[in-house]
Amino acid sequence: MTHLAIVGGSDAGISAALRARELDPDAEVTVVVADRYPNFSICGIPYYFTGEVTPWQSLAHRTAAELEATGMTLRLDTLATGIDVSGKRLEVRTPSGATQTIAYDELIVGTGALPSHAGIDGLDELGPADGVHVIHSMGDTFALDHDLATRQPQSAIIVGAGYVGLEMAEAFRVRGMAVTQLQRGPEVLSTLDPGLGALVHEELASHGVDVITGTIVTAVQKTAAGLTVTSLRDGGPFTCTADLVLAVVGVRPNTELLERAGATLGAGRAVAVDDRMRTGVPHVWAAGDGIVTHHRLLGLTYLPLGTTSHKQGRIAGENALGGDRAFPGSVGTQVVKVFDLVAARTGLHDRDAEAAGYEPFTAASAADDHKRYYPGAHPIHFRVTGDQRDGKLLGAQLVGRRGAEIAKRVDTFATALHAGLTVEALSDLDLSYTPPLGSPWDAVQVATQEWTRQSLRMTIETPA
Amino acid sequence: MTHLAIVGGSDAGISAALRARELDPDAEVTVVVADRYPNFSICGIPYYFTGEVTPWQSLAHRTAAELEATGMTLRLDTLATGIDVSGKRLEVRTPSGATQTIAYDELIVGTGALPSHAGIDGLDELGPADGVHVIHSMGDTFALDHDLATRQPQSAIIVGAGYVGLEMAEAFRVRGMAVTQLQRGPEVLSTLDPGLGALVHEELASHGVDVITGTIVTAVQKTAAGLTVTSLRDGGPFTCTADLVLAVVGVRPNTELLERAGATLGAGRAVAVDDRMRTGVPHVWAAGDGIVTHHRLLGLTYLPLGTTSHKQGRIAGENALGGDRAFPGSVGTQVVKVFDLVAARTGLHDRDAEAAGYEPFTAASAADDHKRYYPGAHPIHFRVTGDQRDGKLLGAQLVGRRGAEIAKRVDTFATALHAGLTVEALSDLDLSYTPPLGSPWDAVQVATQEWTRQSLRMTIETPA
Repeated sequence: MTHLAIVGGSDAGISAALRARELDPDAEVTVVVADRYPNFSICGIPYYFTGEVTPWQSLAHRTAAELEATGMTLRLDTLATGIDVSGKRLEVRTPSGATQTIAYDELIVGTGALPSHAGIDGLDELGPADGVHVIHSMGDTFALDHDLATRQPQSAIIVGAGYVGLEMAEAFRVRGMAVTQLQRGPEVLSTLDPGLGALVHEELASHGVDVITGTIVTAVQKTAAGLTVTSLRDGGPFTCTADLVLAVVGVRPNTELLERAGATLGAGRAVAVDDRMRTGVPHVWAAGDGIVTHHRLLGLTYLPLGTTSHKQGRIAGENALGGDRAFPGSVGTQVVKVFDLVAARTGLHDRDAEAAGYEPFTAASAADDHKRYYPGAHPIHFRVTGDQRDGKLLGAQLVGRRGAEIAKRVDTFATALHAGLTVEALSDLDLSYTPPLGSPWDAVQVATQEWTRQSLRMTIETPA
Repeated sequence: MTHLAIVGGSDAGISAALRARELDPDAEVTVVVADRYPNFSICGIPYYFTGEVTPWQSLAHRTAAELEATGMTLRLDTLATGIDVSGKRLEVRTPSGATQTIAYDELIVGTGALPSHAGIDGLDELGPADGVHVIHSMGDTFALDHDLATRQPQSAIIVGAGYVGLEMAEAFRVRGMAVTQLQRGPEVLSTLDPGLGALVHEELASHGVDVITGTIVTAVQKTAAGLTVTSLRDGGPFTCTADLVLAVVGVRPNTELLERAGATLGAGRAVAVDDRMRTGVPHVWAAGDGIVTHHRLLGLTYLPLGTTSHKQGRIAGENALGGDRAFPGSVGTQVVKVFDLVAARTGLHDRDAEAAGYEPFTAASAADDHKRYYPGAHPIHFRVTGDQRDGKLLGAQLVGRRGAEIAKRVDTFATALHAGLTVEALSDLDLSYTPPLGSPWDAVQVATQEWTRQSLRMTIETPA
């Protein structure tokens, strides 16, 4: 009987535990969870703050009782503090503060990531009691909830305009707060090209979010007027003040436990693993937001996403029990709802692709989600990226109205990327059609055919 | 300069003409259209009868003027009556009834299909003036429209419960008519397994459609009470009477013109073509509902669909001008909206797969379209079919609520089928996730993982 110890109760750790219990009902599986909220949907937190999800307990993918019913043991409020590699023992601090060790045959570490402070002065010192928040765990959630309930702040500055920042802007607006959103780059949602990010920006503005781009935040401080955020904008200082500050400027891998055990770091200073989720430390595996990401187009990179953590965890759980499954790699698929808009991407855009040695060409286009004669048709805005040398699909970005099946249209591109198709081969796909839900050539194919047209035109106009 | 003549103004013919004009602006393209409605969306006709699409002119994918603006010549109300193969001349009957010939270098025939009467007595004799209708062309549409407006029938019998039959049941119910729907097989929508067809049946019933399955219609006749449909049911006679009868019992390929020119017939008694759309008759190509279908899983079959006609037409247009593009094959993807339900399929179900020599296993499952904690989640009901020998994906069927992105979720399966993935490999796909629109393992992956679980269980329970 194998004893599998797992550190981390989020996507990677729980996926590993579930997979192990599924494959071997005799495996003894212990999951060490730093807080008391295993298997919570961190991606769902913004919808708790919009009021759409209530109570907070419903954010659990599964309850602790459901998890334990699969036969795993949960050690809640327990912090993993060290790994005795040669002795195969995990050192933990129990809820009462005592130190214990847990013997294991195999260990999987899924300690995830930590909120980045991006070098912003004040973020280390100020916290929820000061009205300065991050949103990365259920603890952060309760702290923000408490602050909103007790102080009733009327205004918020959100530092960052990525996925979570945009979702939280919506949540604060739904609650009637004034929202200023500061973004370092030239446009919101920097995972999209600025031309499409601008559509998201418009959606935010039309819902009353004051978006300020090109703003490098340098400090947050408490002032008489509330919380003042200082930044550089257009080469000069720029300040704004609000009752509350939420910093959502990315994450950094939480590698300490594994580094001390002898693991090496790779891309993005995340823990290096091979495609089997081996760390190189004997009997120690890792998965999730703390490790490097195998990417089908980029090789090794760092791209922490919940979907990837689930896949990596499932593979670590299988391989720790003697399996030999490879993680076939991410293609970087992401989607976000922003008010009534949906923005999605998969694969690479020009600058990623160029950096990775491809010769990308990107074509912008728009196509209706379904036949225009049927009520409710809306354009989907596309940017399709392919390699000019061999025509291979490299990526796609889509923005359009909610209800236009954008989230699952990006999946067609993601599946085509996974399979290594050319842009042109997407016209060969037998995609579904009925007038209320599509077109004889699906919008996806209209966009890829437009890529072919534009890339040929470009080739003709710029002879070698 | 090539002169390309094309017979047929629907999906295949117009796609061929557009592609030819796109690739060679010097090509002279003449399209011979039997009626005056080129490039109409026949799939959209039911939505004209629901009142959602108005006026009927908006059903045109493109107007005649838009088509001619691309540089093609349309010969409307002109019937192709013969092909002089050695002389490379197409014989036509002009609107005035005169006979003319059109010289061509290359000829593409897209004469489509004709409504089948399925051996039902009376359908050959009775027509729109008697209240007996088919719905296959704009002419049929005008005849039904006129009948509905002038006689104001209060009740209809729809013979057949396939895609168009179900859409027309919805249209008649929206107009307040009593609808009886007669289906030969054990369940509606026989492209789905009966377990999923039953969900569609419930949706029809809940909207007041009187669905009667297992009913073999033998005759339609005019009686004092209206129109009486006679059938065999449970081994005995069964009759019902209504003010109007709509027969939608499938189609048969319209092959006469090509047969007389020497083309041979293949699967489904459709015109045999190779994957370049060559008929074997010199300089004569064909595409659309009149020809055999190259299917990636079945080889040659007959599966007339608008999406396929567009692809075949595009290829015929390219190859007739000297191109050498192969049609890579259909996988049989279809979707229909029935009231508030969406039903989709791609690939094969058990009986198709067995007939084609596969060893299929099908697993039923259900998974929410998005995280249940976010409002508006609905289960999608799946049937996933894979080959037990090598785990290869063979097909998928999906039924669920409108808004659950079912039409574009079946596209993920269709793309995976096109790429020849195993069922298990769908878990490797990097599909998009945000709580309002998906789950960390998309519903598609929950269904394929369930296939793996059930197929392993079956293997264990039935050792060889």
